[in-house]
Amino acid sequence: MHIDELPTPALWADVDVLQSNIAEMAKRLPGNRLRPHVKAHKTSALARLQHDAGHLGFTCATTREVMGLAKVGLGDDLLLANETVDVNRLAAMAATNARVTVAVDSEATIDAAAEAGIRECVIDIRVGFRCGCEVDEAAELANRARASNIAVRGVMGYEGHAMGVVDIDRRRELVKAAMERLLEAHSLVGGELITGGGTGTHAINTWANEIQAGSYVLMDTAYTEQTDQPFRQGLFLQSTIVSVADKFAVCDAGLKAQGMDHGNPSWVDGEILFCSDEHTNLVPDESLQVGDRVSLIPAHIDPTMAKHQVLHLVSKGEVIDQWDIDLRHW
Amino acid sequence: MHIDELPTPALWADVDVLQSNIAEMAKRLPGNRLRPHVKAHKTSALARLQHDAGHLGFTCATTREVMGLAKVGLGDDLLLANETVDVNRLAAMAATNARVTVAVDSEATIDAAAEAGIRECVIDIRVGFRCGCEVDEAAELANRARASNIAVRGVMGYEGHAMGVVDIDRRRELVKAAMERLLEAHSLVGGELITGGGTGTHAINTWANEIQAGSYVLMDTAYTEQTDQPFRQGLFLQSTIVSVADKFAVCDAGLKAQGMDHGNPSWVDGEILFCSDEHTNLVPDESLQVGDRVSLIPAHIDPTMAKHQVLHLVSKGEVIDQWDIDLRHW
Repeated sequence: MHIDELPTPALWADVDVLQSNIAEMAKRLPGNRLRPHVKAHKTSALARLQHDAGHLGFTCATTREVMGLAKVGLGDDLLLANETVDVNRLAAMAATNARVTVAVDSEATIDAAAEAGIRECVIDIRVGFRCGCEVDEAAELANRARASNIAVRGVMGYEGHAMGVVDIDRRRELVKAAMERLLEAHSLVGGELITGGGTGTHAINTWANEIQAGSYVLMDTAYTEQTDQPFRQGLFLQSTIVSVADKFAVCDAGLKAQGMDHGNPSWVDGEILFCSDEHTNLVPDESLQVGDRVSLIPAHIDPTMAKHQVLHLVSKGEVIDQWDIDLRHW
Repeated sequence: MHIDELPTPALWADVDVLQSNIAEMAKRLPGNRLRPHVKAHKTSALARLQHDAGHLGFTCATTREVMGLAKVGLGDDLLLANETVDVNRLAAMAATNARVTVAVDSEATIDAAAEAGIRECVIDIRVGFRCGCEVDEAAELANRARASNIAVRGVMGYEGHAMGVVDIDRRRELVKAAMERLLEAHSLVGGELITGGGTGTHAINTWANEIQAGSYVLMDTAYTEQTDQPFRQGLFLQSTIVSVADKFAVCDAGLKAQGMDHGNPSWVDGEILFCSDEHTNLVPDESLQVGDRVSLIPAHIDPTMAKHQVLHLVSKGEVIDQWDIDLRHW
């Protein structure tokens, strides 16, 4: 099927870009130097490509992501990189055949994991602006985990505040400061894992021994400003022009079909005016007709993938496969 | 089950608010004076309450919404209030037992409808900033529809630019100008329907003979500034505190669990710092513990509903029912 035959709005990935991004990252961070974050795509078929490229461990943001990867046999080494005190969900993860490690940063999260039969954890250290304990709390929490029969595999710290910084020197400074905190915590906690990082810092975070990058596979538009990024944008939202006025045209892919937290999508053939629920108003460089097709580039991949049931795989204009986006919801 | 036992993030509606909003609107715009827009909630169980309140016709934004309402027997009179040239989807709608009317605003949209066997349409007039033909094109399009054996039921015009205006006098001016255009088009086209409006203009749009309001059932936060609105907010996002720092706390409901196009959610017990994929950082007025529950108020209902599989119905803290959000996707 040609891409122009897809009912719209339709999410599609350029499979050549996707494969090239995966290969490039596997060269830069081979094997377990990368623990791909599946929150970026929520698609087990895509995770399998990353697994085939040599990355056997995965980072997950939700129980659903962990359970889904376990179900399809990608459970070699799954890290739930978020805290939870939901004992039922923790127990469900513990009951899979997968190796499941969870992030903990408080007595409450350790106690919930212990009650649920979780066997391994990392101590999440606050090195940025979100979750994590202070460095000087790490040793005590590690002791509490071990006393609860939970092995401590090391430390985790996500330098999210550095991820989108355009200037590479400034970005490196922020990563260095964050990772020095993480290493200090690691010296108190021990374990084989020093896990952190993301696409924005994958090349400069030389302190963590594994990097949790996810966006590199399809790339957010914000990363295009980082000139050190070798990865190309590969995610598009196919739409149809449904109405044309004097000065603008309207396509059938709106804010319900894409993440809006990073702002409007990009478009190479004109200007984006605004998005409404099921429409985007465009000012095209050259006039468009009703029925014409337009490919938008969503600004933020992660929430865009989470809004669709299916990802279409496109090579040179032909739809060659479609994948269930099967790790959505919670 | 008490609301605090729900796994989080969980979307819930205050059923007492919801019922009171539905009753208030049925009093203001009884029967077919209101054609509720299901895009606001995408939930056929909720549409059934609106049907029980006397509104037999519905407004839909997508084929999936039309097909879903038809399937559950709510197809008395369904208006697809958006243009489409997707002949397969149009034919699928035409093949249901429902009465299906579609909006058209161009030769292409009429021809697609005709090819698909659609039997009724309204001419969509541009009275705002989105779709619709010019007034002076309306008669010719109506003739083309009739010549294609599509009955023309009247005209549609959505004054979206007036909807969120806080000052009621300014809002009324904008509605008046928009609806004068719509009435002019109606004089050229004929038919029993003059359809338009929304929650923001439901009380002042006295020109349209049916109003397409949807948000009134659960209410967006933006409407709280309109002091003439009798409806109360009824949609909440239940979350759990998973991490606590000195100056802030982190809950497990982030931007993947709510629409972000209207900005951050509201919260009555403190300040919202920012949302990330699966978290929101909060500065609570009084200190919170890991495991505490927090109810956020999503800023925009429509895309928030579209992100969840289930809506929980809550009365006085008890979860009394749950509804599939069954009209999602396209």
